Amino acid sequence: MPGYERHIFVCENARPDGHPRGCCAARGGTAVRARFRQLVQEHGLATRVRANMAGCLDHCAHGVAVVVYPEGVWYGGVTVEDADEIFARHILAGEVVERCRIPAASPPRA
Amino acid sequence: MPGYERHIFVCENARPDGHPRGCCAARGGTAVRARFRQLVQEHGLATRVRANMAGCLDHCAHGVAVVVYPEGVWYGGVTVEDADEIFARHILAGEVVERCRIPAASPPRA
Repeated sequence: MPGYERHIFVCENARPDGHPRGCCAARGGTAVRARFRQLVQEHGLATRVRANMAGCLDHCAHGVAVVVYPEGVWYGGVTVEDADEIFARHILAGEVVERCRIPAASPPRA
Repeated sequence: MPGYERHIFVCENARPDGHPRGCCAARGGTAVRARFRQLVQEHGLATRVRANMAGCLDHCAHGVAVVVYPEGVWYGGVTVEDADEIFARHILAGEVVERCRIPAASPPRA
C-alpha cells in the first residue's frame, strides 16, 4: 500500500503579528520542516519517511508543534537543533525524544 | 498524552494553473477538508478527531489525497461526497472505504 514508515507533520500555520495565540510559522516552523526534509534526503529515505507541511495542529502554545505518525508522538517547542536529535533518535532509531514531548496533560489548545 | 484517536490530513497544496503535476487545491482539497471539519464539529468529536490541512502529500495524481492516522490509510480522488462516506464508515465505525483507497501499487509520485 502507499505510505511511509514514518510521516512527520510540522505545523507551519501563520497568524498575523500580535495574535494572542501566536503561531508556529513565527517560531520557525518552516526552518524545522526544511531541516527534517534535508535530513530525509541526506539519508536517502525519501520513499520511507516524509516531512510534511501541516496547517494548525492546535498546539499553538507548544509551537513549533510536530507530530510523528504512525506512533502519534507529539513534540513541542521544536527547534532546528531538536529536529536533528528527533531525526537521529526517533526517525532513525525508533527512540522517542522524551525531553521534546508535549506534556502528557496538555490537551489541544493548551 | 496529547493527540487524537483519528487524525485526518487533507492535501491542500496549490500549484500554478497548467502545472504538469496538478494539485489537490485545484481538485477541491479545501472543500473536502471543510466538510470533514464540519462533520467533526457536528458529531462533537473535536477533542478526539482532527481534520487537518496538509501540504503536498506527494500523491498528486490521486488528488484530492487524504491520509488517516494512526492507521495510515490513504485515500485518493476524494470528493465532498466521499468525505461523507469516509467519515461515516471509517472515522465513526473504523471500516476502511476500499473504493476510495489509493491503489496498492501506487508509490508516491505515481
